[in-house]
Amino acid sequence: MKVLVIHGPNLNLLGKRETGIYGKKSLNDINKCISTLASELGIKVRILQLNNEGEIIEAIQKSDYDALIINPAAYTHTSIAIRDALLAVGKPAIEVHLSNIYRREEFRKKSFMADVAVGQISGFGPESYLLALRAVKSILSK
Amino acid sequence: MKVLVIHGPNLNLLGKRETGIYGKKSLNDINKCISTLASELGIKVRILQLNNEGEIIEAIQKSDYDALIINPAAYTHTSIAIRDALLAVGKPAIEVHLSNIYRREEFRKKSFMADVAVGQISGFGPESYLLALRAVKSILSK
Amino acid sequence: MKVLVIHGPNLNLLGKRETGIYGKKSLNDINKCISTLASELGIKVRILQLNNEGEIIEAIQKSDYDALIINPAAYTHTSIAIRDALLAVGKPAIEVHLSNIYRREEFRKKSFMADVAVGQISGFGPESYLLALRAVKSILSK
Amino acid sequence: MKVLVIHGPNLNLLGKRETGIYGKKSLNDINKCISTLASELGIKVRILQLNNEGEIIEAIQKSDYDALIINPAAYTHTSIAIRDALLAVGKPAIEVHLSNIYRREEFRKKSFMADVAVGQISGFGPESYLLALRAVKSILSK
Amino acid sequence: MKVLVIHGPNLNLLGKRETGIYGKKSLNDINKCISTLASELGIKVRILQLNNEGEIIEAIQKSDYDALIINPAAYTHTSIAIRDALLAVGKPAIEVHLSNIYRREEFRKKSFMADVAVGQISGFGPESYLLALRAVKSILSK
Amino acid sequence: MKVLVIHGPNLNLLGKRETGIYGKKSLNDINKCISTLASELGIKVRILQLNNEGEIIEAIQKSDYDALIINPAAYTHTSIAIRDALLAVGKPAIEVHLSNIYRREEFRKKSFMADVAVGQISGFGPESYLLALRAVKSILSK
Amino acid sequence: MKVLVIHGPNLNLLGKRETGIYGKKSLNDINKCISTLASELGIKVRILQLNNEGEIIEAIQKSDYDALIINPAAYTHTSIAIRDALLAVGKPAIEVHLSNIYRREEFRKKSFMADVAVGQISGFGPESYLLALRAVKSILSK
Amino acid sequence: MKVLVIHGPNLNLLGKRETGIYGKKSLNDINKCISTLASELGIKVRILQLNNEGEIIEAIQKSDYDALIINPAAYTHTSIAIRDALLAVGKPAIEVHLSNIYRREEFRKKSFMADVAVGQISGFGPESYLLALRAVKSILSK
Amino acid sequence: MKVLVIHGPNLNLLGKRETGIYGKKSLNDINKCISTLASELGIKVRILQLNNEGEIIEAIQKSDYDALIINPAAYTHTSIAIRDALLAVGKPAIEVHLSNIYRREEFRKKSFMADVAVGQISGFGPESYLLALRAVKSILSK
Amino acid sequence: MKVLVIHGPNLNLLGKRETGIYGKKSLNDINKCISTLASELGIKVRILQLNNEGEIIEAIQKSDYDALIINPAAYTHTSIAIRDALLAVGKPAIEVHLSNIYRREEFRKKSFMADVAVGQISGFGPESYLLALRAVKSILSK
Amino acid sequence: MKVLVIHGPNLNLLGKRETGIYGKKSLNDINKCISTLASELGIKVRILQLNNEGEIIEAIQKSDYDALIINPAAYTHTSIAIRDALLAVGKPAIEVHLSNIYRREEFRKKSFMADVAVGQISGFGPESYLLALRAVKSILSK
Amino acid sequence: MKVLVIHGPNLNLLGKRETGIYGKKSLNDINKCISTLASELGIKVRILQLNNEGEIIEAIQKSDYDALIINPAAYTHTSIAIRDALLAVGKPAIEVHLSNIYRREEFRKKSFMADVAVGQISGFGPESYLLALRAVKSILSK
Repeated sequence: MKVLVIHGPNLNLLGKRETGIYGKKSLNDINKCISTLASELGIKVRILQLNNEGEIIEAIQKSDYDALIINPAAYTHTSIAIRDALLAVGKPAIEVHLSNIYRREEFRKKSFMADVAVGQISGFGPESYLLALRAVKSILSK
Repeated sequence: MKVLVIHGPNLNLLGKRETGIYGKKSLNDINKCISTLASELGIKVRILQLNNEGEIIEAIQKSDYDALIINPAAYTHTSIAIRDALLAVGKPAIEVHLSNIYRREEFRKKSFMADVAVGQISGFGPESYLLALRAVKSILSK
Repeated sequence: MKVLVIHGPNLNLLGKRETGIYGKKSLNDINKCISTLASELGIKVRILQLNNEGEIIEAIQKSDYDALIINPAAYTHTSIAIRDALLAVGKPAIEVHLSNIYRREEFRKKSFMADVAVGQISGFGPESYLLALRAVKSILSK
Repeated sequence: MKVLVIHGPNLNLLGKRETGIYGKKSLNDINKCISTLASELGIKVRILQLNNEGEIIEAIQKSDYDALIINPAAYTHTSIAIRDALLAVGKPAIEVHLSNIYRREEFRKKSFMADVAVGQISGFGPESYLLALRAVKSILSK
Repeated sequence: MKVLVIHGPNLNLLGKRETGIYGKKSLNDINKCISTLASELGIKVRILQLNNEGEIIEAIQKSDYDALIINPAAYTHTSIAIRDALLAVGKPAIEVHLSNIYRREEFRKKSFMADVAVGQISGFGPESYLLALRAVKSILSK
Repeated sequence: MKVLVIHGPNLNLLGKRETGIYGKKSLNDINKCISTLASELGIKVRILQLNNEGEIIEAIQKSDYDALIINPAAYTHTSIAIRDALLAVGKPAIEVHLSNIYRREEFRKKSFMADVAVGQISGFGPESYLLALRAVKSILSK
Repeated sequence: MKVLVIHGPNLNLLGKRETGIYGKKSLNDINKCISTLASELGIKVRILQLNNEGEIIEAIQKSDYDALIINPAAYTHTSIAIRDALLAVGKPAIEVHLSNIYRREEFRKKSFMADVAVGQISGFGPESYLLALRAVKSILSK
Repeated sequence: MKVLVIHGPNLNLLGKRETGIYGKKSLNDINKCISTLASELGIKVRILQLNNEGEIIEAIQKSDYDALIINPAAYTHTSIAIRDALLAVGKPAIEVHLSNIYRREEFRKKSFMADVAVGQISGFGPESYLLALRAVKSILSK
Repeated sequence: MKVLVIHGPNLNLLGKRETGIYGKKSLNDINKCISTLASELGIKVRILQLNNEGEIIEAIQKSDYDALIINPAAYTHTSIAIRDALLAVGKPAIEVHLSNIYRREEFRKKSFMADVAVGQISGFGPESYLLALRAVKSILSK
Repeated sequence: MKVLVIHGPNLNLLGKRETGIYGKKSLNDINKCISTLASELGIKVRILQLNNEGEIIEAIQKSDYDALIINPAAYTHTSIAIRDALLAVGKPAIEVHLSNIYRREEFRKKSFMADVAVGQISGFGPESYLLALRAVKSILSK
Repeated sequence: MKVLVIHGPNLNLLGKRETGIYGKKSLNDINKCISTLASELGIKVRILQLNNEGEIIEAIQKSDYDALIINPAAYTHTSIAIRDALLAVGKPAIEVHLSNIYRREEFRKKSFMADVAVGQISGFGPESYLLALRAVKSILSK
Repeated sequence: MKVLVIHGPNLNLLGKRETGIYGKKSLNDINKCISTLASELGIKVRILQLNNEGEIIEAIQKSDYDALIINPAAYTHTSIAIRDALLAVGKPAIEVHLSNIYRREEFRKKSFMADVAVGQISGFGPESYLLALRAVKSILSK
């Protein structure tokens, strides 16, 4: 049971800036929580943070995983190319957001991933990723 | 740690009809899963299924709970009154959907609850409720 | 051959007010015409007038009928929950309107029922219901 | 009691193509049913199938009938000129559709005839015309 | 001179929650002010608080009053059924809002009642009701 | 100085129907006025009334005239093909309307001819054509 | 307690024209009613009627008053400059309309003043101003 | 037979600038043509050029004329106050434009005057005013 | 292998007018190129130029061809009836445009044919037809 | 090198009110900075503050300057007449805003001046004017 | 005669996934067909597949080719930067799509390339590229 | 005082192509002007030209500067990811455009940067950067 976790653009700055919105945990801290829960659930995770749309597409295309957890960050709202990569590989994908995207700018309400992902989890901070891991476990166990 | 779970209109028909979209589990089956996990997590749950907007509002108004898990079903897209009840009581609420609402009719993409809830979990079938329970646990533990 | 006829909100006032738009027949008068034609056609009708969205949903959910004739009145334009009930029970439903809804306010042009009903009959006054009965007869006879 | 029935563009192909949507009855079959019911109801019908907007306008302009049953097909959504002809002659007209136009492409939801017709009947296949005949009977009998 | 005052959904929570927006007066306090002024003006008031759309419709339908003061709260923006009830009974109605609805979410700017009411008073807190009472007095005195 | 005058669809019914909107003059009456003024101004007019879009296009294409006065009636709002014919022949054209098109249905406000015509004259009844003749005179005299 | 009352453009014609909509009272009559009630309430009023946007701005800028009652008439829907003047002086302002602006042209539904005013009173004819005076009294008394 | 001609903002610059669009005639030249034709037609004209919205309103309000010819220029698209003045005085008004407003920026297609004027003449350069004079003559002669 | 080529309205004027946009080749010249390439490819072509929507519909309905190449010209953007004819006969159709329709007026961007045709070729002048012939060859060869 | 600087409506209140948004400098202070830099750059400035749209138009029309720096304030978003004055005189104009207009109400994002000005400078407080002066210098030096 | 062919993001997966939509040919197979036809036509082709927007821009910027055939895939609908690169180099470009983009999601109907390309060919599968090659040949031969 | 200047995609082609719009200065020429003025003002500048969205994000993230001058070119209108990078680092940023973006295609009017930048300078050609440098100087001096 192999899972790829992709953190989209600017998430490398987590915990350093805008801590009012995104909390004080660094991406490292979050990744540790993910790894810990993954091993508890018997899941092998590989975690990537990528700022470049093209690199995200190529990471998805490799399809060396059973399921994908992706926080596309800003690309959620603008990248049809990432959507197409998800469609092309056809692996179950879960869309994750740290913040509640419905409380922010109007343009953040549109997701190009939402209808090609299995489901969406948003608004729970780092816990969003952990819930996604459990969801993956449940999906792959069927 | 008391949690109110509200199933909105027509969810009493789960498992009986439209099983292609909503799966074969009845509402009863789902409620048992919720209760089981809740007791594992040390949460006391009260579960209601209500078809009437006014009754949902009044259940929310009682505010005899620490957090709320709500699948507002069709009212997600039409009820400002339920939104206002959530705003008025101010308890943490989690919006849950069985199906991926972004794969359906255009009008299902608009949620009047999304920006007043803590977060949203959609598309995982009955598992959506279980993830919400874990999210509640995490929120109330802080 | 059992048919449920549902008159939506405010139709209990028929013949008493706004007779310029809706005519001078009371709901009672209309119901008598419906019953008469139904027995001619060998159809058993049950007729309800309900002002409450939740009660309409529950009447539809009972599904103790072979087909449904519904004049959702104002809920035509606002109730996704009634639409969902129609979808869930999956019985043939006919949408009926007394007045020509396309001659009125802009917001009356949108129907949440139109694409889940078998068909729509609007603008013929009380005759609309009688035409619907004949349509039901034709549908159930196939 | 003379009634003109106009079948709009492409309806001459009924029963030959797209039988999944429009059924297997040919236009001829439908016309026979119309004639049979008309004579039962004491109505003299004249039936035309016209592919050309201008010819439909001129058929309407003749106004040698007491009421009009019209299935404007594609012109429903595009022809203000047919609408104007209906307005100009001022005879009672009934708009008929075989299929449920609300289940199809977005642009089929707009009718230029709906608010100038007495009423609209859609979605009942060939039965739509028969219901319209009965509606005409009822209107002209008043 | 009999006046019905209807407080819509969630207004029973006034003074308990969101006091920053709605002020610290409870619904009871407001009702007392209404009663006091009403008796000064020689008006008999009956005051209802209802969370359910259907019950508001039925209260309006009774029409055992000369004029109506209604704060439809959330239903202002969603209920065509309440609008239709107002239209059907045809009694003079005044739309009242405690808060300035133009300073809030975009969807609160649309009122289904505004053009069927005599007039609208919004933004003056509990005073809005008192101004409405005086307006009623003036209207009924003509 | 040869001028073609085209009356679009349904204008042959002028003076017979909807006299409240279009006045009591028949098309014949109007044509006589046009001819009289034309000969006063030294203009040779040819006048056509056509209900068919295709025939209007072909009349325009002949281009056996120095200028065109066209009342496209309903085609004003729907015919890009007539617009293209005007563009293709490139003769000065004047758009004329009997009624004030801005006082009618929303869809009558859009003209596909307005920006390819020299100018537009609307709202003056039969006088609109006479003003157009004078405008043509002025344009061709330059 | 000094209050400035501003009547916007064309209100000087009140009682002379369009009496069907605005009533038969002249502006003078209304001003007398305002003055009478003002002195009853212990308010000093200054009343201006101005047709020019720039002069309204300058009258507002003077800020030699404790509160402002303004019927911006046509400028309600077009003047951001008057809005900015209200914002700049920051005195409590009440927006008043004689007619029910929601029953008229679509463009009259948008007010540039509504969200910067304390509140809005519309539809009560001259009584609107008197209600506004009472509202001012209540606001300034706090 | 007295006619007021109002030239709106910036028309005093005619013939001096943007001669490519508006031609080389100065406003003076145009006014002379207007006066000449007016006296031919037995019409007394008064001609004003006003840059200020408020002054245009007041000139209209005077209503010391039998009909009005107005080229509102930029105010065509923005001034509800001028529209309201036209409505208030209720004299026949003709909207005139030198250029074809449908060939220019999108925002020039909307006229606040078009549906309150008798009719509109646009695109004929200075000739537009002369046609309007003839239209006035025809209207006042009835 | 029989192919019908339909040139829509106004294309008979090709090479005579607007040569800046459409080039100097006449329709005859283009037809010769089509015939030459067709015989090279072993395709029998029949070529029609029709200005009338109704005649285009009837030419399509005959379905005495294996594939259709259609340049619907102005009807591209307005004719649902031609779309319906294409749908009804179900033969492979290729939509062709001489000019690049995306460089022109906004309303030329919408095609009612695009999603019912196999594919679209636009912008290559007369070459567009030749490419379409090759495309037909490739489609029919499968 | 003569430059006209126009401050639009309400800017005379600068430094007195809303200092949180616009800063504490009065218009006088800003004008002094402008004058100082102008003389450094060898520019003769004339500075006007005008609240009235008509007066701004007339100041622009005088065209007794080589370039124009204009902060149209609220008129930015509503005045086509000022736009037309800029177009008519054809002198280089620079649009200036103190605050960042993109951070404010939606309606402040639309500028009727932006595409007729040479360029736009917004968001730098009083410094915006000084940058504009330098831009003017650079433009006029070419 | 040198031609650059650019395959946009995710096209490297052709023939491996979603074969229902895109067919069973791999990108390699398509490239061979392109090369074969190119050498037949005397064209030197260089073929690139790039997932990264920035790399596509830079490939276009090199402008070491006489014409460009580009299938921008997902970037068709989102990349103004690729559009700008096409505009900047000014070489003739042809937009190609394998599938009929008008049969898919709404957002695929908008192309940022369509009006800067010479023309567009869509819906013919791999044949689309071959038609584009022939179009290039024809363009460059002029 | 360290300032980072970022030139977005395709700006490396400046002076080579589209000189009608962007002028004849190469990017090198512009950079020299920037460096010269920067040293005059005592500012250390680092200048980058990047075609790749991901690289721009990473350059911004480094935040080894006191302020940022950015001409995001095409990404202005499409990149939420660059916006998020600006938000995350929180350094003062100035948005610069060579051309007047309001005179171009509709889609260039929307900037994702405008409301997160301090201010915007557009339309002055290379001078835009120099004005931005002076603005930076003024901002950092406070």
